[in-house]
Amino acid sequence: MPYWKILTPVGAYSDEDKQALSDSITDLYVDAVNLPRFYVVVAFEEVPAGSFYIGGKVHTNFVRVVIDHIARQIDTPQLQEACMDWIEMVLEPFVKERGFDWEVHVDETPIELWRTQGLVPPEPYSEQEMQWAKDNKPTPYEVLV
Amino acid sequence: MPYWKILTPVGAYSDEDKQALSDSITDLYVDAVNLPRFYVVVAFEEVPAGSFYIGGKVHTNFVRVVIDHIARQIDTPQLQEACMDWIEMVLEPFVKERGFDWEVHVDETPIELWRTQGLVPPEPYSEQEMQWAKDNKPTPYEVLV
Amino acid sequence: MPYWKILTPVGAYSDEDKQALSDSITDLYVDAVNLPRFYVVVAFEEVPAGSFYIGGKVHTNFVRVVIDHIARQIDTPQLQEACMDWIEMVLEPFVKERGFDWEVHVDETPIELWRTQGLVPPEPYSEQEMQWAKDNKPTPYEVLV
Repeated sequence: MPYWKILTPVGAYSDEDKQALSDSITDLYVDAVNLPRFYVVVAFEEVPAGSFYIGGKVHTNFVRVVIDHIARQIDTPQLQEACMDWIEMVLEPFVKERGFDWEVHVDETPIELWRTQGLVPPEPYSEQEMQWAKDNKPTPYEVLV
Repeated sequence: MPYWKILTPVGAYSDEDKQALSDSITDLYVDAVNLPRFYVVVAFEEVPAGSFYIGGKVHTNFVRVVIDHIARQIDTPQLQEACMDWIEMVLEPFVKERGFDWEVHVDETPIELWRTQGLVPPEPYSEQEMQWAKDNKPTPYEVLV
Repeated sequence: MPYWKILTPVGAYSDEDKQALSDSITDLYVDAVNLPRFYVVVAFEEVPAGSFYIGGKVHTNFVRVVIDHIARQIDTPQLQEACMDWIEMVLEPFVKERGFDWEVHVDETPIELWRTQGLVPPEPYSEQEMQWAKDNKPTPYEVLV
């Protein structure tokens, strides 16, 4: 969590662009909600021109971002707005400033149905999660029941 | 919104097929729920034969449609059924009549966690949404609070 | 349902691997919740190295599993845990034992917004579903209203 799928035209971004955007996305979640860095997964998918349609028309200049949030659920309109503002801020240099059209939506999925490296991730903001963030990797821990 | 991902065998559809199917999908949402045309995003993904399994067997003739609904939530069994009937009607010429097997499912995601072109989309069926539909593009507008 | 999307590095799995993993996944759902085999859809997606980022770093050794559950919803913490344990058990020989890092999450989507082969799937655990399981294909049936 979060899981970002970024659909782009073929060749839209260089490896350096993808690296820079992934960095910005990761920084966002670390800064905003203290996520361990390794929680942030970004996958780019290049969509061939004849395979991407907006409003029934081939679009060759469109970036579509599809996000699943798992580790943090947003429960107030204020936080929803802030979250989307942050996401747009991160995207802007890679979409608006490059002349792409773009759209983004986020789904929230159950935290209980998520494992990383075979482990149940620690409670949000728990001491163990802070440890994972510090280590930047999932380490086995004792689950208190 | 809606966001359609259509997984097909390699070469299943020509560019003309993809254009025609995307047109039908877009018409559906415009006619049924007055969406602005540009809300409708369709991305095709060709899955290589050895990478697509149904019931544990390689399937080389299968179309899998995965849809996210964002701008409109369906809240009665009658509308759910109608929605799926419409979707099947649109798909039929491109799946059943072509001899493909097929399956479709829709998820609904929070309208609050969605932006297009950096803008908060107007309320469903609002005057502003009608304006976007007429313009067929998102234009900045004054949000009344 | 279920719909599994498995993102891997290019060349991570041979056709035999993909066949074996798809078989294990299918067996899991048949054994655990009596699903018809053909309900289980698995699609592999190879992500080029410079397009897959974990924690803002290129990762060339990561398997990301994204699952939609449709036909069965899980409604107790015990079943959620059991479900994820089963999924990990199936994945382990293909991730941990191969030296891949991995992560998995499941979303649950509305059963009412799902059709297979144009048909409304029968009620979970109904006689008709058992018939579909036995036939391993969807056959038209009389819907009692």
